[in-house]
Amino acid sequence: MQKIITLRTDRQNGLYDITAEVTSIIRSSGVISGIASVYARGATAAIMIQENWDQSVQNDVITFLRGIIPPGVWEHDHQDDNGDAHLKAGLVGASETIPVIDNNPGLSTWQNIFLCEFDGPRAKREIIVTVIAES
Amino acid sequence: MQKIITLRTDRQNGLYDITAEVTSIIRSSGVISGIASVYARGATAAIMIQENWDQSVQNDVITFLRGIIPPGVWEHDHQDDNGDAHLKAGLVGASETIPVIDNNPGLSTWQNIFLCEFDGPRAKREIIVTVIAES
Amino acid sequence: MQKIITLRTDRQNGLYDITAEVTSIIRSSGVISGIASVYARGATAAIMIQENWDQSVQNDVITFLRGIIPPGVWEHDHQDDNGDAHLKAGLVGASETIPVIDNNPGLSTWQNIFLCEFDGPRAKREIIVTVIAES
Repeated sequence: MQKIITLRTDRQNGLYDITAEVTSIIRSSGVISGIASVYARGATAAIMIQENWDQSVQNDVITFLRGIIPPGVWEHDHQDDNGDAHLKAGLVGASETIPVIDNNPGLSTWQNIFLCEFDGPRAKREIIVTVIAES
Repeated sequence: MQKIITLRTDRQNGLYDITAEVTSIIRSSGVISGIASVYARGATAAIMIQENWDQSVQNDVITFLRGIIPPGVWEHDHQDDNGDAHLKAGLVGASETIPVIDNNPGLSTWQNIFLCEFDGPRAKREIIVTVIAES
Repeated sequence: MQKIITLRTDRQNGLYDITAEVTSIIRSSGVISGIASVYARGATAAIMIQENWDQSVQNDVITFLRGIIPPGVWEHDHQDDNGDAHLKAGLVGASETIPVIDNNPGLSTWQNIFLCEFDGPRAKREIIVTVIAES
C-alpha cells in the first residue's frame, strides 16, 4: 500500500507529529510484518524520529539547527533566501524506514514520527508512506 | 524475515558494531538480492554506517557530536536531563537501509553497521532488522 | 531489480547528481508503486536528497560541513588523514529510500538525488539501487 499524507504547516520552522496518520496507513495495508517507508516531498522538509512527551525536544531541535545553520549567510540565499532550510533538510534527511510489527509501527514508547518543516508556513506538505511485507 | 537484535551498552556514549548480527539474520532469511532495514528502537539511540578498522573513527564520532551538541543546555534537560541524547539520535537517524547482495550485506570493505548509544548504559537496546527481496 | 551505478569523482568534496541514473533503473524495473533504496558503498561517501536548480545549494552543503567538521583535528587522521570525511559520511548517512510512483521516482519538483563525495577524487564510486514493489 502507498498513501500520501497531506499537512498544512503554520510556522517557518516546526516539527509536526504524523505518527497517527502513519499508523492508520499501516493498519489499513494489512501488512503484519515488514517496513513502512516515510518520505518527505520537498527539499526544505525532512523526516525525524523523536520523542513527543511535550514540546521540549521539538523546540530543542529547532534551536539546535538554527545554531549550527544560521539564516542569511549562504550562497543560495541570493536566489531564494532559504539556504538554511535546504541545509537543515539535507542534514536531517528526507526518509526514515520504520519496521512494521503486528500490523503496527514498531516504535519504542518514546519514538514518534515527525515531519520537519524548515521553510514554512506551507499550505500543503506531502509525506509519502509505502508499506511492504517482509520476505 | 524480521528479527530483533538485543544489546547491553556499557557507556553513556558509544558505538557498538552489529554487522555480524545483521549478517547472520540476512543469511538465515534466504533472501539473495534485496534490502535489510536496520532500525534502532529508542529515541536516544541511532544507526550509523561507519568504518571499524580500529576505535579511532568511533571516538571521533562521539567527540564531534559532543562538540556541536553539548550536554546541559537544552529545554528538555529540565525534564529528563538527556536533551543532548535526543538531539544526537534525531540527527544521526534511527534507520539505515542496507542492500542485500548474494545473501550478504552489500557493504564496502570499510563499512560496518553500528548502534549508536547516546544515553547509556542500558541493560537492553533493541535493533529491528527486516529483510525484503527485490521485485 | 537491483543495479549498481558507478561514478568517477573529480573533487575532494562534491555532490554528484544521480537522479537520471536512478530514474532509469526504476523504469526498467517495471515496478509501478513501491520504493527505491539508494545506498552509497564507501565509508567516506553518502546519499543526500537536495535541490539542483544551480550549484549554490551544493556549494553550501560543502561549506557548511567543512565548517562544523574541519579537517586535520581528528584521532583517525593519525591513521588515514581523512577523519573529517568519515564524520561527514556518517552524519549525512549512506542510504535514502525514495518512493516509486507511477514507475518514476516520487520526488518533488526541486528534489534530486546526490552522491556526496567527501574523500575524492575517486576513480570509481558505487551506488546500489534496489527497487521493491509495495505489498
